[in-house]
Amino acid sequence: MKRKGQYTIEYVNTPFIIGFASVVGKKEGEGPLNGYFDKVENDTKLGCQTWEQAESKMQSEAIDFALGKSWIDSKDIQVAFGGDLLNQCISTSYNIRNFGIPFLGQYGACSTMVQSLLLAGMMVESDYADKSLAVTSSHFCSAERQYRYPLEYGGQRTPTAQWTVTGSGAIVVGKGNNGIGIKHCTIGKVIDMGVTDINNMGSAMAPSACETIKAYLTDTNTQPSDYDLILTGDLGKIGSDLLLELLEKENIDISNQHNDCGKMIYDIEKQDVHAGGSGCGCCASVLCGKILQKMYKQELNNILVIATGALMSPTSNQQGESIPAIAHLVHLQNI
Amino acid sequence: MKRKGQYTIEYVNTPFIIGFASVVGKKEGEGPLNGYFDKVENDTKLGCQTWEQAESKMQSEAIDFALGKSWIDSKDIQVAFGGDLLNQCISTSYNIRNFGIPFLGQYGACSTMVQSLLLAGMMVESDYADKSLAVTSSHFCSAERQYRYPLEYGGQRTPTAQWTVTGSGAIVVGKGNNGIGIKHCTIGKVIDMGVTDINNMGSAMAPSACETIKAYLTDTNTQPSDYDLILTGDLGKIGSDLLLELLEKENIDISNQHNDCGKMIYDIEKQDVHAGGSGCGCCASVLCGKILQKMYKQELNNILVIATGALMSPTSNQQGESIPAIAHLVHLQNI
Repeated sequence: MKRKGQYTIEYVNTPFIIGFASVVGKKEGEGPLNGYFDKVENDTKLGCQTWEQAESKMQSEAIDFALGKSWIDSKDIQVAFGGDLLNQCISTSYNIRNFGIPFLGQYGACSTMVQSLLLAGMMVESDYADKSLAVTSSHFCSAERQYRYPLEYGGQRTPTAQWTVTGSGAIVVGKGNNGIGIKHCTIGKVIDMGVTDINNMGSAMAPSACETIKAYLTDTNTQPSDYDLILTGDLGKIGSDLLLELLEKENIDISNQHNDCGKMIYDIEKQDVHAGGSGCGCCASVLCGKILQKMYKQELNNILVIATGALMSPTSNQQGESIPAIAHLVHLQNI
Repeated sequence: MKRKGQYTIEYVNTPFIIGFASVVGKKEGEGPLNGYFDKVENDTKLGCQTWEQAESKMQSEAIDFALGKSWIDSKDIQVAFGGDLLNQCISTSYNIRNFGIPFLGQYGACSTMVQSLLLAGMMVESDYADKSLAVTSSHFCSAERQYRYPLEYGGQRTPTAQWTVTGSGAIVVGKGNNGIGIKHCTIGKVIDMGVTDINNMGSAMAPSACETIKAYLTDTNTQPSDYDLILTGDLGKIGSDLLLELLEKENIDISNQHNDCGKMIYDIEKQDVHAGGSGCGCCASVLCGKILQKMYKQELNNILVIATGALMSPTSNQQGESIPAIAHLVHLQNI
């Protein structure tokens, strides 16, 4: 709880990630990160009656795994943060009612995982909670029919479009002396560069990622080369290219450290996902899958995670509004 | 930052409400709280092209008033919390992009004002921010067409239905030595008693208010008579009656201290609003109107505010799901 520079917060009493888990759908399980997820669900409905219920159940499973791996029970958690892409964040509300954990619903579109994690970290650092939880999800089928077209319509996708990840991730934060520490965070501002194409979200979100990364590096007086990995949430291929360009104009070169969850989760060519993955579940499942596992094994030790969110709705888009975007950052370090 | 009992947090380094403001629509301006709002907008569109844009503008106006009354500028605020009822919380995202304040979007349905305020308080108490902001809104026309029917349809309302308030409230939180202090908060759990009637939200939300009030009184070992006012957010007439009944079963009698924003904002009989007001803007405009003004004038000195939210969506309702609800509490005291 020390402010660094203009926008960055240092967690002086470092909170730790004491448990994490991810659950994904069939397509994600067939991608290059196969083997890193706690569970792959081959049934898109997970035995439920609707995709919305399935998404909710996927969250519950991710929380169950994360709690189990932390050796704790839901009643040991004093506060949960989470949200999702569905109208009124129903995946999360309907999921969390089963756990009896005090809950503060978050909406940051695809930035929700990092937004929830940075708040969960603050709660533990400042003794508002001994243990806290961050959870989010997305589901291709529930998102597609809400944001775009009913799946039955079989609409053609543009090359710039991204594929909403069916997946969920959950993280338990607690006190400790060593492990994966949450060291800093930078809370983003809403940036709107006037992009109106909802089939090109990567481009709408890249400027906000650029702003947040620049703010963090300035505030902490560090260089991209100080980190093992600079991971963006779901810019996909097109948004990632644009981010590198935008940062280059600021004389910041992250090309050697950068990767993007939306590029990692699918084999973009073979799996026909056009510009890559997106959705709250994209950053959540990649972070709670491969990335945190690699930190746990100390194959990664010092990383930045920047999750980006596009904050429009179908209504605002139909009304001709541009797409405002936001990006939040957490710095994770093995201690 | 001291936990009291199982669910309640005491703000030991008391954060203070240093500015607050409310803006409402014509109908609200004609109600019994006339004279307590910073501005009454007689044009439902506030000169904008759509109701959604109008709602967003109403938030901007409330923030402008609150900043002005705090004698500060938006760049003095390190973090803003806020949200609304619209899909993807667009009123808030589109509003906040104009201010350049780091932003964490909240979704707690009609509990959003208290949810945002309790987090804004934590940020200041624990030095994550010198000053923080909480803001929310609702608009009858944008909510009605999203949740129920297009206004042009002229659907008949049931006697248990509530009327979504057109209004916004904003609160600036900062450090200080005296004034309106944020003393405690209790973060609610999602409670679902199986109510499925979306035209009876008061009844769906009353059990969560009961749980949170009981938890707070137990944790702090205080009595209803210790407070000048116990104010619920938008239970309306039917939900308020049910809350008193539910608390009575727990041997808690708040009947002498209780009032409800949804009952206060309209003349329920004359203004034809059936069970009373509702919406994020209900608690926000009543709290940032009459209530905080009365605290400022020391006519009220020690109050509890419990905002309730119904967390369903039209989709979950159509799928036959019941309505999960949540209630968050803040304890405000003149110091």
